Amino acid sequence: MTINSVSVKQVTFGKQPAIVIAGPCSIESEEHIFKEAQALKAAGVDMIRAGAYKPRTSPHAFQGLGFEGVKYLRAAADSVHLPMVTEVLSEYDVEKLIDLVDMFQVGSRNMYNYQLLKLLGQAGKPVLLKRGFSATLKEWEMAGQYLMSEGKASVVYCERGIRSFQDETRNTLDLAGAILLQAKTKQPVIIDPSHASGRRDLILPLSKAALAANISGVMIEVHHNPDQAWTDAAQTIDYSLLDQLMKECQPWLTSN
Amino acid sequence: MTINSVSVKQVTFGKQPAIVIAGPCSIESEEHIFKEAQALKAAGVDMIRAGAYKPRTSPHAFQGLGFEGVKYLRAAADSVHLPMVTEVLSEYDVEKLIDLVDMFQVGSRNMYNYQLLKLLGQAGKPVLLKRGFSATLKEWEMAGQYLMSEGKASVVYCERGIRSFQDETRNTLDLAGAILLQAKTKQPVIIDPSHASGRRDLILPLSKAALAANISGVMIEVHHNPDQAWTDAAQTIDYSLLDQLMKECQPWLTSN
Amino acid sequence: MTINSVSVKQVTFGKQPAIVIAGPCSIESEEHIFKEAQALKAAGVDMIRAGAYKPRTSPHAFQGLGFEGVKYLRAAADSVHLPMVTEVLSEYDVEKLIDLVDMFQVGSRNMYNYQLLKLLGQAGKPVLLKRGFSATLKEWEMAGQYLMSEGKASVVYCERGIRSFQDETRNTLDLAGAILLQAKTKQPVIIDPSHASGRRDLILPLSKAALAANISGVMIEVHHNPDQAWTDAAQTIDYSLLDQLMKECQPWLTSN
Amino acid sequence: MTINSVSVKQVTFGKQPAIVIAGPCSIESEEHIFKEAQALKAAGVDMIRAGAYKPRTSPHAFQGLGFEGVKYLRAAADSVHLPMVTEVLSEYDVEKLIDLVDMFQVGSRNMYNYQLLKLLGQAGKPVLLKRGFSATLKEWEMAGQYLMSEGKASVVYCERGIRSFQDETRNTLDLAGAILLQAKTKQPVIIDPSHASGRRDLILPLSKAALAANISGVMIEVHHNPDQAWTDAAQTIDYSLLDQLMKECQPWLTSN
Repeated sequence: MTINSVSVKQVTFGKQPAIVIAGPCSIESEEHIFKEAQALKAAGVDMIRAGAYKPRTSPHAFQGLGFEGVKYLRAAADSVHLPMVTEVLSEYDVEKLIDLVDMFQVGSRNMYNYQLLKLLGQAGKPVLLKRGFSATLKEWEMAGQYLMSEGKASVVYCERGIRSFQDETRNTLDLAGAILLQAKTKQPVIIDPSHASGRRDLILPLSKAALAANISGVMIEVHHNPDQAWTDAAQTIDYSLLDQLMKECQPWLTSN
Repeated sequence: MTINSVSVKQVTFGKQPAIVIAGPCSIESEEHIFKEAQALKAAGVDMIRAGAYKPRTSPHAFQGLGFEGVKYLRAAADSVHLPMVTEVLSEYDVEKLIDLVDMFQVGSRNMYNYQLLKLLGQAGKPVLLKRGFSATLKEWEMAGQYLMSEGKASVVYCERGIRSFQDETRNTLDLAGAILLQAKTKQPVIIDPSHASGRRDLILPLSKAALAANISGVMIEVHHNPDQAWTDAAQTIDYSLLDQLMKECQPWLTSN
Repeated sequence: MTINSVSVKQVTFGKQPAIVIAGPCSIESEEHIFKEAQALKAAGVDMIRAGAYKPRTSPHAFQGLGFEGVKYLRAAADSVHLPMVTEVLSEYDVEKLIDLVDMFQVGSRNMYNYQLLKLLGQAGKPVLLKRGFSATLKEWEMAGQYLMSEGKASVVYCERGIRSFQDETRNTLDLAGAILLQAKTKQPVIIDPSHASGRRDLILPLSKAALAANISGVMIEVHHNPDQAWTDAAQTIDYSLLDQLMKECQPWLTSN
Repeated sequence: MTINSVSVKQVTFGKQPAIVIAGPCSIESEEHIFKEAQALKAAGVDMIRAGAYKPRTSPHAFQGLGFEGVKYLRAAADSVHLPMVTEVLSEYDVEKLIDLVDMFQVGSRNMYNYQLLKLLGQAGKPVLLKRGFSATLKEWEMAGQYLMSEGKASVVYCERGIRSFQDETRNTLDLAGAILLQAKTKQPVIIDPSHASGRRDLILPLSKAALAANISGVMIEVHHNPDQAWTDAAQTIDYSLLDQLMKECQPWLTSN
């Protein structure tokens, strides 16, 4: 089965080998993101992820560094020659960010924000589209149609776990759904084992599982000191575990 | 237990008696909404609902009449001296609509659209906040905090069914969750039995159930000819069933 | 709509007025169940419930008083002239219990235990059939068919909450499902707000809601000293709250 | 991490390599199961599965060949020198079947049937314990404790998908849950991609995913002519696809 290619600078989703996106949940400072970028480069990941606009359940929680944060991430990514992806929350920010980012991320909370999707569809940058907390495959596919129907933007879908009664993982990774969507849409689908599981000990086995099933990549939360990460500490791995992951996933991360 | 009052013109949520909001899913034309408004007035409902901006799963489906539609609804509501509520989807539309609407509706798809919530919180109109498809009570409550933390907007929460494995109703009405949220936040909570069930035959018993449990109101989809409604036909009732509902719910719809 | 009558001694399910079954989760001793029975009679309930065979998640937890417990319950119920219902777990116990019980209860864990259902269908006593944790309406209905297809047993269905992502109640009461099943099967359906919610503060509003929606009865966990109940303490109410419930539900508990 | 070994004749679960159990959903006749057994042996599977006692949603559906069916399966398995596993539904059948079966299967519907579990725990044969439709990991683990607490029976857990809102697969495979349970209990955990997905096209990728994540085996529904299978046709694969699966899973099915 041939998957449509989605290119973000030198990175191509949808072809062998699979892609690894990694980085901290939040950009905490300019110094912080430069330090992470160097370590990510050294670990051999393909692309950096980090959040500047953070959609938080409470309006009183840390909301991210905002526009300054995106500028730090831009500079940090350039310093190590890796492309980057970051989340956009507001219609007003699309134009502001378009020359700064390599790929826009639409988070689970905004998968149904069709006005934002329409604007991003006109903007023309590639988009990483996370699945809503309880989106059906049809809804998720159609959200991608909001992005692609203008013919300008290309989409990489990201499965990040769905909500179920199960309470020992943060969400329930729907690997079968990810496989089905990739087969149906022919667009690359990756998984985010960090949000799917909420547990460091599951990042490695879930990554291997997805790659063995021909999923196009993984997106992982990494931090120099996970226990000190400002957000998502419980699911963030350190560089030692990232190195192990890169090594054990080697069969799917190199071209044959 | 005392519930905080939320007033929309002559209508007050959170006090006895309970409030009935009703109307068609979509505004189909100027003539259509005037005709519905007259029938809604005759039926004795407190407030009119109708959608001009429709968040549809597919970008190729009917997206609503937009700004023209809101103007038709404004005029129709005025013609029968009833307040109205309609959904807003885009940050760009808040300012445009603020002088036209009596109450903004935030739909399930945008419950997590925190940028829209922040703008509405600054705008200061009352907001009807529907629960996300699988929002926890905490997330739903906090979404209301995004609206109220500026101290300008007041919120009425609306439970419209959550997603579960159950496949014989469109969603699963979480009446217990609605009761808990009202007790915890002291803000009025109403239910939408139309979206919760997706079935005409459940609108009446679910409405009675909610009102008997001290829920502050119901929001119901009504149409002159439900089978011809452009959207949500299967869950839309006609005026004969609305009359029966108003009659059977009488104990909770009149002050004692 | 006419519902088929199910009679258990002087109690008739499926006709007005609605039926109240109440009692402790577990029979703790002979003295205990006699004391509860007297209080239940004084409160005006129609039927006593109490468990002697307890299906516990852990094999190391209290498993109930067993056959001795059923004999205590039989005597206690007779002492106040009320019928009783108690759960049966094992195929081997059906014959042993048949002359002792007025109505068998099949719990959620055994709704799919078709061998037990077949034996109960041949035994011919009325059965209270609880819905499985995530049983579809079709499965629940068909489990009742296992009981009724021999033509000997009659069934009262009991909705006790389904599993969902919602974590602030023990389960999610599917009131719409209960209403639909009663309409479809014409058999009486009651609700168990105790297991559905897991919270004392929801027993009263959920009972009123169900009765207002024409549900045929409620089953409630009551204990002289709920905080000391051996099992299900958090959802068990005391007699003062039971009195309030009987009073506020009066419109549905007396014939018109 | 070391997993406890569970041996069924020459087959050992919990050690490398992983185990493949395969066979038809139902035993349809003596001739049928002999034919399948020969093909399964030729395909290189480790163990045969087939059902004689079928727990069907409707009492009017085919209930399986019963005791005769088990005898056919016994003879067929012996004819190709493979061990077999088959489901037991009734407490009364445990003693009857104990000398015929190599491993008992407890299906999802009976995971909470603690009386059956207790009897099987005393019987002492190895047991394949499927997860209930919406069992928490704790409940599933504890069901295994009912089997193992007597010290006679050993358990292999089988994840077969849980119920969620997702409607494009029959169930939602909870691979993360399977991994967690194996890590916590140290007992072997296998997956059943047939019931988890309900789709032939997902059997192969889900099997590879699970094996890459160090799951101890897979159980797969196979039939000479899947479209003619009496039960579960949509999820049953043919021998050509089984051959492909055995080949593509080779890295995990051979010792290193």
